[in-house]
Amino acid sequence: MRILIDLMGADKAPGVLLKGAALARSKTAFEAVFLGDKNEITNDIKEVYPYDHLWMESEEKITNEDEPAMAIRRKKKSSMVLGFHALKNDEADAMLSAGNTGALLAGATLIVGRLPGVDRAALTIILPGVQKPTILLDAGANMDISPELMRQFAIMGSIYAQNVLKRENPTVGLLNVGSERGKGNQLTKGSEKLLETAPIHFYGNIEARDLLESPCDVIVCDGFAGNVALKTLEGVSSTLMTLLKDKIMSSTRGKLGGLLIKPALMEVKATLDYREFGSAPLLGAAKPIFKAHGSSDEIAIMNGILNIKEFYQQQVNSKILSCLEEKND
Amino acid sequence: MRILIDLMGADKAPGVLLKGAALARSKTAFEAVFLGDKNEITNDIKEVYPYDHLWMESEEKITNEDEPAMAIRRKKKSSMVLGFHALKNDEADAMLSAGNTGALLAGATLIVGRLPGVDRAALTIILPGVQKPTILLDAGANMDISPELMRQFAIMGSIYAQNVLKRENPTVGLLNVGSERGKGNQLTKGSEKLLETAPIHFYGNIEARDLLESPCDVIVCDGFAGNVALKTLEGVSSTLMTLLKDKIMSSTRGKLGGLLIKPALMEVKATLDYREFGSAPLLGAAKPIFKAHGSSDEIAIMNGILNIKEFYQQQVNSKILSCLEEKND
Repeated sequence: MRILIDLMGADKAPGVLLKGAALARSKTAFEAVFLGDKNEITNDIKEVYPYDHLWMESEEKITNEDEPAMAIRRKKKSSMVLGFHALKNDEADAMLSAGNTGALLAGATLIVGRLPGVDRAALTIILPGVQKPTILLDAGANMDISPELMRQFAIMGSIYAQNVLKRENPTVGLLNVGSERGKGNQLTKGSEKLLETAPIHFYGNIEARDLLESPCDVIVCDGFAGNVALKTLEGVSSTLMTLLKDKIMSSTRGKLGGLLIKPALMEVKATLDYREFGSAPLLGAAKPIFKAHGSSDEIAIMNGILNIKEFYQQQVNSKILSCLEEKND
Repeated sequence: MRILIDLMGADKAPGVLLKGAALARSKTAFEAVFLGDKNEITNDIKEVYPYDHLWMESEEKITNEDEPAMAIRRKKKSSMVLGFHALKNDEADAMLSAGNTGALLAGATLIVGRLPGVDRAALTIILPGVQKPTILLDAGANMDISPELMRQFAIMGSIYAQNVLKRENPTVGLLNVGSERGKGNQLTKGSEKLLETAPIHFYGNIEARDLLESPCDVIVCDGFAGNVALKTLEGVSSTLMTLLKDKIMSSTRGKLGGLLIKPALMEVKATLDYREFGSAPLLGAAKPIFKAHGSSDEIAIMNGILNIKEFYQQQVNSKILSCLEEKND
């Protein structure tokens, strides 16, 4: 398979993307197409990525400050836009970018398009968990959605859980303010009924306090709520860890204790490690488009690419298509 | 002032409420009116609460399993409903309950009513913070709201911050998926403009990752998003602390380290301590109605009552009324 890799996005771009791609390539076969500006690469590429590859030269850059739709329309020679057109023209099978999330969503919609039967693509992340990871969608692509869209998210998330996380009979929970039926806003009330009859295993409502210890394989929500949940989770984990470190380091006694509990702390950090999957698909896009975190290191990029390969080999998009068609018959 | 104290709600009710009230009464003057079933109190009340007080005898109980509006309509002799009628008939100045939140909201609306100019009451909690606490509203009372309601929440939260948290010129942020203007869903887009012209200091958008390190004094949002943020915060803090403890206790080395970092851990816990304020008002209700956490201990209840007294003495409701009237002139 041929994977487009946008070298221009991450905080440590382009180096971290080339290194991550090399690690992935050492584990599995794929053909990388690097999208980027050769002038930004100081090292000899062959030294970092010693495999055959293709190159698409970009001449401008979409930054995190760019207004997404405008950037996609105007920056036609940016790495991201070149990638979208390559996907559209079947010159590649999938794309990975760690760049502007809004631009990635806009480009997926405006240039690549969606799978037939899907009304909007959803940003689908894998949350770390104490027992096992959980899939959350939509994590921020669609702000105002309908119950029908929630149903599509549930079906797509369920197929992703089955094929990429290898969960048999995955359960889907609806993010809500209480676990009893009939709770929440108009959207969740309207969605409950549709989820009960959808071709999924509907778990019922799940509260945000259970995100890290979820009884479900998949959690569905609108992109606003999903973004609030995800960012609260990231913010609280990071604030707590920093606070704990500061308090420990503020006394000699604490410093000694800190040394002794270091392995325990590392285990806690490993449990919360986002790098295990490394990339989040825009489920519902006509071609596999994956977002890597801006702060990714090479391990995250490697896992992100391996995740894309699994998604492609398991033909997740075809399975989504069949499942949605079944319903429409 | 006369404060109604619902003895029937908390996990450790009624004991924890009586003890908390006694602690508060030892610090400041007020007349307690206990709402409850004397048969449930095994000790001599005078031993736990050695002050003059009034009693309103309840004959039934609203549980957390009760459907809120139904419970308020049917359980007319429950402690909560007796309290609502006492408030309505001006027999008391404020009420504290640790019972069913939904029932408290329903009773506030159905029996006590709202301040003129307020369309809905908002559950207003004080989040712990690394530097300073932040007010968040609505934390779950109103699921589907309008920009105009967001404006009212902002005004009420701002007055509460000024009078109870003693913040001069408090700033109000809008919970959103990005910090730039124009982000979010239809509600946040519509609210931005109203907040800019409201009689508050509008900070702009604030992301959920900054909840514990908020640059604002007040954060406004709809009740669905607020509930998701709050429960994620509680869930992640609790999961992380438990996980850390388990990992530390799983080895001898860890146990020794754990002893040494105990003071640091206690400081982190103190930073996140919800008990400092102990109660959350339903801002906008015609009379001060405060919710305490079901798991409150006596310190939380004591602080909850002191919080009510401050709210009453500062005449927060009159100030809200004047501010809303100003706008309507």
